[in-house]
Amino acid sequence: MNFASDNAYGALPDILARLVEANNGAAASYGLDDITTRLSRRFAEIFEHEVFVYPVVTGTAANALALATLVPPYGAVLCHGESHIACDECGAPEFFSHGARLVTLEGADAKLEPQSVERALSRFEKGSVHQQQPTAISITQATERGTIYSQNDIAALSAVAHRRGLKLHMDGARFANALVTLGVSPADASWRAGVDVLSFGATKNGALAAEAVLFFNRADVADIEFRRKRAGHLLSKMRFVSAQLDAYLEGDRWLTAARSANALAQKMATGLASVDGAILAHPVDANAVFLHLPDQTIARLRAAGAAFHDWAPSENGKTLIRLVLSFATPPEAVDRFLALARG
Amino acid sequence: MNFASDNAYGALPDILARLVEANNGAAASYGLDDITTRLSRRFAEIFEHEVFVYPVVTGTAANALALATLVPPYGAVLCHGESHIACDECGAPEFFSHGARLVTLEGADAKLEPQSVERALSRFEKGSVHQQQPTAISITQATERGTIYSQNDIAALSAVAHRRGLKLHMDGARFANALVTLGVSPADASWRAGVDVLSFGATKNGALAAEAVLFFNRADVADIEFRRKRAGHLLSKMRFVSAQLDAYLEGDRWLTAARSANALAQKMATGLASVDGAILAHPVDANAVFLHLPDQTIARLRAAGAAFHDWAPSENGKTLIRLVLSFATPPEAVDRFLALARG
Amino acid sequence: MNFASDNAYGALPDILARLVEANNGAAASYGLDDITTRLSRRFAEIFEHEVFVYPVVTGTAANALALATLVPPYGAVLCHGESHIACDECGAPEFFSHGARLVTLEGADAKLEPQSVERALSRFEKGSVHQQQPTAISITQATERGTIYSQNDIAALSAVAHRRGLKLHMDGARFANALVTLGVSPADASWRAGVDVLSFGATKNGALAAEAVLFFNRADVADIEFRRKRAGHLLSKMRFVSAQLDAYLEGDRWLTAARSANALAQKMATGLASVDGAILAHPVDANAVFLHLPDQTIARLRAAGAAFHDWAPSENGKTLIRLVLSFATPPEAVDRFLALARG
Amino acid sequence: MNFASDNAYGALPDILARLVEANNGAAASYGLDDITTRLSRRFAEIFEHEVFVYPVVTGTAANALALATLVPPYGAVLCHGESHIACDECGAPEFFSHGARLVTLEGADAKLEPQSVERALSRFEKGSVHQQQPTAISITQATERGTIYSQNDIAALSAVAHRRGLKLHMDGARFANALVTLGVSPADASWRAGVDVLSFGATKNGALAAEAVLFFNRADVADIEFRRKRAGHLLSKMRFVSAQLDAYLEGDRWLTAARSANALAQKMATGLASVDGAILAHPVDANAVFLHLPDQTIARLRAAGAAFHDWAPSENGKTLIRLVLSFATPPEAVDRFLALARG
Repeated sequence: MNFASDNAYGALPDILARLVEANNGAAASYGLDDITTRLSRRFAEIFEHEVFVYPVVTGTAANALALATLVPPYGAVLCHGESHIACDECGAPEFFSHGARLVTLEGADAKLEPQSVERALSRFEKGSVHQQQPTAISITQATERGTIYSQNDIAALSAVAHRRGLKLHMDGARFANALVTLGVSPADASWRAGVDVLSFGATKNGALAAEAVLFFNRADVADIEFRRKRAGHLLSKMRFVSAQLDAYLEGDRWLTAARSANALAQKMATGLASVDGAILAHPVDANAVFLHLPDQTIARLRAAGAAFHDWAPSENGKTLIRLVLSFATPPEAVDRFLALARG
Repeated sequence: MNFASDNAYGALPDILARLVEANNGAAASYGLDDITTRLSRRFAEIFEHEVFVYPVVTGTAANALALATLVPPYGAVLCHGESHIACDECGAPEFFSHGARLVTLEGADAKLEPQSVERALSRFEKGSVHQQQPTAISITQATERGTIYSQNDIAALSAVAHRRGLKLHMDGARFANALVTLGVSPADASWRAGVDVLSFGATKNGALAAEAVLFFNRADVADIEFRRKRAGHLLSKMRFVSAQLDAYLEGDRWLTAARSANALAQKMATGLASVDGAILAHPVDANAVFLHLPDQTIARLRAAGAAFHDWAPSENGKTLIRLVLSFATPPEAVDRFLALARG
Repeated sequence: MNFASDNAYGALPDILARLVEANNGAAASYGLDDITTRLSRRFAEIFEHEVFVYPVVTGTAANALALATLVPPYGAVLCHGESHIACDECGAPEFFSHGARLVTLEGADAKLEPQSVERALSRFEKGSVHQQQPTAISITQATERGTIYSQNDIAALSAVAHRRGLKLHMDGARFANALVTLGVSPADASWRAGVDVLSFGATKNGALAAEAVLFFNRADVADIEFRRKRAGHLLSKMRFVSAQLDAYLEGDRWLTAARSANALAQKMATGLASVDGAILAHPVDANAVFLHLPDQTIARLRAAGAAFHDWAPSENGKTLIRLVLSFATPPEAVDRFLALARG
Repeated sequence: MNFASDNAYGALPDILARLVEANNGAAASYGLDDITTRLSRRFAEIFEHEVFVYPVVTGTAANALALATLVPPYGAVLCHGESHIACDECGAPEFFSHGARLVTLEGADAKLEPQSVERALSRFEKGSVHQQQPTAISITQATERGTIYSQNDIAALSAVAHRRGLKLHMDGARFANALVTLGVSPADASWRAGVDVLSFGATKNGALAAEAVLFFNRADVADIEFRRKRAGHLLSKMRFVSAQLDAYLEGDRWLTAARSANALAQKMATGLASVDGAILAHPVDANAVFLHLPDQTIARLRAAGAAFHDWAPSENGKTLIRLVLSFATPPEAVDRFLALARG
């Protein structure tokens, strides 16, 4: 009964099989191999657009490289106060960007709102040397609270960004989970809605360690290749990262895995309706369920071996917890969790 | 006939098999899993010493993290002018250390010499705020020219380092290849000879992407965990990196692979003795062969499909080339290369 | 009628005279001169404590060097959302610290409150590699809104800081202005209340360009000398900075100047009581007056040549403005401003 | 008898007088004042070219800001192994540029030679992500050995630089001393010979603390204003720095001072011809004299109170020493030094 994180689970067997296939003779190193080339083509087809693809092994690296490429050291990135880049990366964006600032904003369901972004931007004077200059907005899709931005949400934020010459970055560590709920094409969920750079995640949804920075405009690519190398993120045997991504994308494997995870989240959310004292904290749009649960119930669940994270300190006998579902979570684990929760 | 690099070849099948085994249910993420714990124990046994182990996916990351942990931003690292950290990492040591300086020295066979290190150090005034302060010496084992430091060589350099309060770092991207030639224990080749921190390489010798920073003294570990996370090098599904290293070390698999590669290098070197105009440039101590070869011969080899790197511009009709042998290089490739070279 | 800033005014004539005196023959460079040595003694006497003194030429340099010395790259500094370090230094703290984060908090009158600091700190998990680690709290005395922290206020904040192993930094760009209002000794207003490091300002209160980082504990000094040099802030002819500070401190010149400025602020505040529609926004504790004024009055004042800054956009026909008084502001300017304001 | 450095001496009295004049009422801060504006015009006239002027207080800041503006973090700067940026700034170029590398070259008389620059550049592969990319060449005029580059020397180096798309930076801490020897116009000695950015020094030659970064092409200015602010080098009361530079330039005061210093150096060099065992190590082109002197003579001089620096360890009973002459060095000090040296 592990609901601690989707990264607690392993890899899709087909992805592992692809690694074995890729282990075949000699190949050009540092990303000049055939698999990496094919991967770029595949991304372009899936996104129906020219895409500049930079595979890396962690979401933190993808986010930090993407932002450092967009933002100068004296720049600033507007993001949600609960965003992964602000809370969970130990300052990787600051490290990679040489000290750019994250300007954190509030917003319900862990989502940035165009008005509050506008308001925050109005506090900066363009060109004033006394202030760090906002140059990018970063949003997470699906969010850190398991909610998603609609296409319109994204379009509204990108309009704010572009009107002022800022770029829109999307942390898509759980992009697949959002996409299957949105029910639109990858293109509609990204560049057509105004996303300039996407951290495309695969690790949480079935890869061993594979993400990619995707640029939709050639000019934005700038010097990311130097930055990636310099950060130790250009793998010599790159084919083994590209092979994971290639297998992930092939035959809609990524969407199938995301649908499984999301379906389990729905199953969990539905089941919780009949659990005493369980109150959902946010819409369940992707593969995570946030709920307030009586501390007693929580204790019982943990005693029985359930693993999950508290998301806030206990208040009035209840605690906000997070349950994350993976393509690999055994459905029985959900059943058992619900049974135990019902007491 | 690919002799371009050992990273052009893939992974040991047993390592891939271990990935499949590791793909089993849920596990704690970010290195708190059982495989990573076991790996630390295994390293301690093999090195007969307490070892603090930080797995990462590239040698560049291992080197840069190791050095940044040892050296302040106003520090300096003495290294050979041909070292990987100086020539092939796009300034990763500077990036991770926030601007420490690499002081590059000459030395035959790509090896640092104690006297030249002493001489270089004498040009720095300890505590003078006007100068970056030397705080580490970094050597590569096996070197970038396929030679190795003897135990005495290392001991002499570590004596210089320690006498002045500097740390000794070893870039062991090809540590296994050096070790099997030295014929001593891993302990003798590292901490017993005075190495403080070792970048332990596995990628070139059979892993997909797995290296580890090994500290032999607890005090040197300092804040590497924050630095690794911040650099995007703490993998969420760490078990898949640790599994590679664990399989690599198990049953002397690493030494067996290195012996194969080195044996092929010997076979190549021996065979070259009867090639017209071929002159070895350095002792062949590990898995690389550096030789001067007539440009005509080189052209013939390349026309026949041989892949290898020039190591200097052509001079007097000859060029210095590098041939790297891997555990996975087909022995027939060596035979064919030699036959072609003989004309 | 220039109320734009205290840095719009020049220097105390006695300080200029001291520069001429200091211009006498040869002297050791880089701070090894007699004036700098004497300055350190003088600071120690005035603060009744061992003090480690590092003169620089800007408040931004003083703050950024102080913080970078206290805080690692993966550290965080808690400060007010309106603090100079957060709003007016273009990210100097991030630059000098190599990417530490400023965690900005709200608080009335531009003052940090112990409870909100506690609350913010409780959101960080000590030792978790996923989060930047709070290592310092920074407060401004007098604040950016012309208010001051009482001795108790400071003691309460330092207690919070020290209980968790954090350091307390004080941005004292207007330390003198606060001190004369507090009516306590420099020691009481700093280390006795728990301040670990003080950015001691003199520029705004009569120097040409002279500030000093003061450490009250030897251990905190760490490597600031290297950092200062490396940032281009170790002046070769340091005696000319030290001479300014020495003259500033001598004979209570600094306190006299601050008293003049504060008295003018009181005169202004008192006079504003009889100005239609003028409403003070904050207590006038030092040398700045923040008030809401009808936009019509503001227009009239500016048309007549008064210089001052808006501090927020106009709302309901009124705007929040800031008036800063200097020791060198002509008292008649205040009279004239008030007369014009009365219409 | 202080020959330790030109920065051991104070300021030109006229420059101090100008500070007193500048201390007049209120003025716009942060460089928006009239004196700073006038200074820019004056530089443009003197250099017969559009000039973008950024005053700072140290040569280290000027050099590091200039280089950081020209060179990305993954860039490299070619410079002489004895250059101030490489030897005396504690890594300021690395700090400001976020880790760019200094590639140090040999060269007689502390001068870079076009051929060795070409050779060094040929070792870099343009666009290869594995190597830091050379983007600037930096030379010092007058050099750290008191020699100077002729106009042709500079033109040859700038040709090498520009042919490969690199910029040419000149560290002109002693630009005036070189200029009066060259006997050409400031324009001929800088942009007409291909210098793109000049660190224009005044401190060593009569200012208290005043240098300026001069750009001759608007495009090169890039973001230096943000970088200067962020480094704490934008002074609030900038008029006091600009006033120094303005007085320095006015009425050829800078050239007069440099001529005095150089003349004293000639006097010293000439006098040394009749000192037993004294051998000049380099041409005396500016205001520094490098000579080998018997250790016995050195001891005698120091015992009598002469101050100067050894420039290398003693060898065969002689030591290389440096004598620096300033506009403010009393001529009698030279006489006395020579008399003592003669024994």
